[in-house]
Amino acid sequence: MRVTVDGEPRDLRTVWLEGDVVKLLDQRYLPHEVRILSARNYEDIARAIEDMAVRGAPAIGATAAYSLAQASLQGYDLEKVAGRLRRTRPTGQDLFHAIAYVLGAVQAGTSAVEAAEAYASENAERCRRIGVHGARLIREGSEVLTHCNAGALATVDYGTILAPLRVAKERGVRFHVYVSETRPQLQGSRLTAWELQQEGIDYTVVVDAASGVLLEQGKVNIVLVGADRVAANGDTANKIGTYAKAVLARENRVPFYVAAPLSTVDFSIPSGRRIPIEERPPEEVLFVGTTAIAPKGSPAYNPAFDVTPARFIRGIITEEGIVRPADLRKHRPRTR
Amino acid sequence: MRVTVDGEPRDLRTVWLEGDVVKLLDQRYLPHEVRILSARNYEDIARAIEDMAVRGAPAIGATAAYSLAQASLQGYDLEKVAGRLRRTRPTGQDLFHAIAYVLGAVQAGTSAVEAAEAYASENAERCRRIGVHGARLIREGSEVLTHCNAGALATVDYGTILAPLRVAKERGVRFHVYVSETRPQLQGSRLTAWELQQEGIDYTVVVDAASGVLLEQGKVNIVLVGADRVAANGDTANKIGTYAKAVLARENRVPFYVAAPLSTVDFSIPSGRRIPIEERPPEEVLFVGTTAIAPKGSPAYNPAFDVTPARFIRGIITEEGIVRPADLRKHRPRTR
Repeated sequence: MRVTVDGEPRDLRTVWLEGDVVKLLDQRYLPHEVRILSARNYEDIARAIEDMAVRGAPAIGATAAYSLAQASLQGYDLEKVAGRLRRTRPTGQDLFHAIAYVLGAVQAGTSAVEAAEAYASENAERCRRIGVHGARLIREGSEVLTHCNAGALATVDYGTILAPLRVAKERGVRFHVYVSETRPQLQGSRLTAWELQQEGIDYTVVVDAASGVLLEQGKVNIVLVGADRVAANGDTANKIGTYAKAVLARENRVPFYVAAPLSTVDFSIPSGRRIPIEERPPEEVLFVGTTAIAPKGSPAYNPAFDVTPARFIRGIITEEGIVRPADLRKHRPRTR
Repeated sequence: MRVTVDGEPRDLRTVWLEGDVVKLLDQRYLPHEVRILSARNYEDIARAIEDMAVRGAPAIGATAAYSLAQASLQGYDLEKVAGRLRRTRPTGQDLFHAIAYVLGAVQAGTSAVEAAEAYASENAERCRRIGVHGARLIREGSEVLTHCNAGALATVDYGTILAPLRVAKERGVRFHVYVSETRPQLQGSRLTAWELQQEGIDYTVVVDAASGVLLEQGKVNIVLVGADRVAANGDTANKIGTYAKAVLARENRVPFYVAAPLSTVDFSIPSGRRIPIEERPPEEVLFVGTTAIAPKGSPAYNPAFDVTPARFIRGIITEEGIVRPADLRKHRPRTR
């Protein structure tokens, strides 16, 4: 992705390996500041995932892959490092997929560095193909509603939702995106808006509670979201607020699509009921930056994700095409 | 309502007249600071309404009534003052109702001061009765979801949603309230949480986008919201995000109630399509306090209200009882 650092345009990925240092675009400081975090060991990386310096299921997956690569260079026990990484964030599937990928490759005789680089490049390539398949959903005059950030920052590069938008823009399609701010961590207004601005795509920021009125008034004709984990039946865990958008979209007969690489699909669980939902600290709700938004001593409940049942989902945009939830099992990879 | 000012518990209303000064509990500084705003003339008051120092349809109504009382003491032309006040905020009905009430009383020979005092006291009494009628909806173990602030601060005293909660608590019923923070202005986390804390009622703050998961997981068994204007058929304009909660409540078979005095009902319009929806400045979305939450130059769309169709509403809690939307017309006052 194109990022301007100190006035210089650079082509960056979300995460990469330099020597034995894992470098991350630190998403906590965006959009106001572009900072690169240097993670010197696996504990640094685990904390970067927990503190959401890096977030987005595919980006977390690639970060875990690079962490194992780093750990192998530093002589750590890979199983122990994998155990620590698996305990960082429970909901997203790519984390577990990436760890299994690298450990499997190492067992098969590949170096962990090579495996991690292959994983990251595969992820970027999957997103690029999601862009090609998804772009046909973006038509002249489309009004898109999105939630959270499913951009390049949530992946290694290209993004899942951003990829189709970028391809459509390259083809000269004119469209507009409503960006739902995505409280509590504001990944929509901070990250998606920033990426769309960098890409020159028209957008408008709205509060999460405005989705209903946008859909009801016909101001939106497609809803596009990413995914943290998709069950085998198509039920999809994604950022808190996604389920509400899906229900509101169906109520107003607006198609609702999920974009995710097949590495986000957990074929081992039959339905979304089995996806563990991470609960995050109440402070994320009670403060915006340093501003307290509730009386001192207020309790808050902060589930990070919700599950959208497959019946609300028109299609899942994958690297193999747009798949109906009911057909997802046909795309199960033969070897894992 | 009980408010502790400089360590002293005081019994305050949201708005009152002292000499020819209209005093307002300035809601922009809550919950961190209790400040009283002294409005010395009608322009001060109009701006206090526009800037949301006072908000909530019934509270705005009473403020407008006191503004006319003040203007009569200061020798202004009441029609001119009424014109300025009517241009402050277009959505709420009580503003128009209160102005008509005071001007009508003055024409009939009552003083504007007396009329304003009567209007404010009637409003407080209506809310007290809403409390008595609504309390039967709050049962042992009830889990309530509310949005925005329909507390004492939104009225003259008691509140519309807060009144039933307070009566239930006095009766010893144990229940709990989920407070939806209500971006962009955070009236839920700032004002409702503060009032519930003052009343010793159990509550938990959640982001607006969490309503879906709370309803879907059975964590909520009743949704209670206020209203800014109710059309004759029961369609209800209320804070942005209310419509989404109503759709999500119906999807999950959770009853959804509106609480409002009959002064909030606009019997002159047949449906919610005719309720004007105020659009507020984009800065309210783009900043929380002084914290910018989106890249510089981001556009934002900020409709302040949405309309919930009557079919989603189980009942409207009024001073005359809990009324089905279809029966609302039976409660049309004979004289206006």
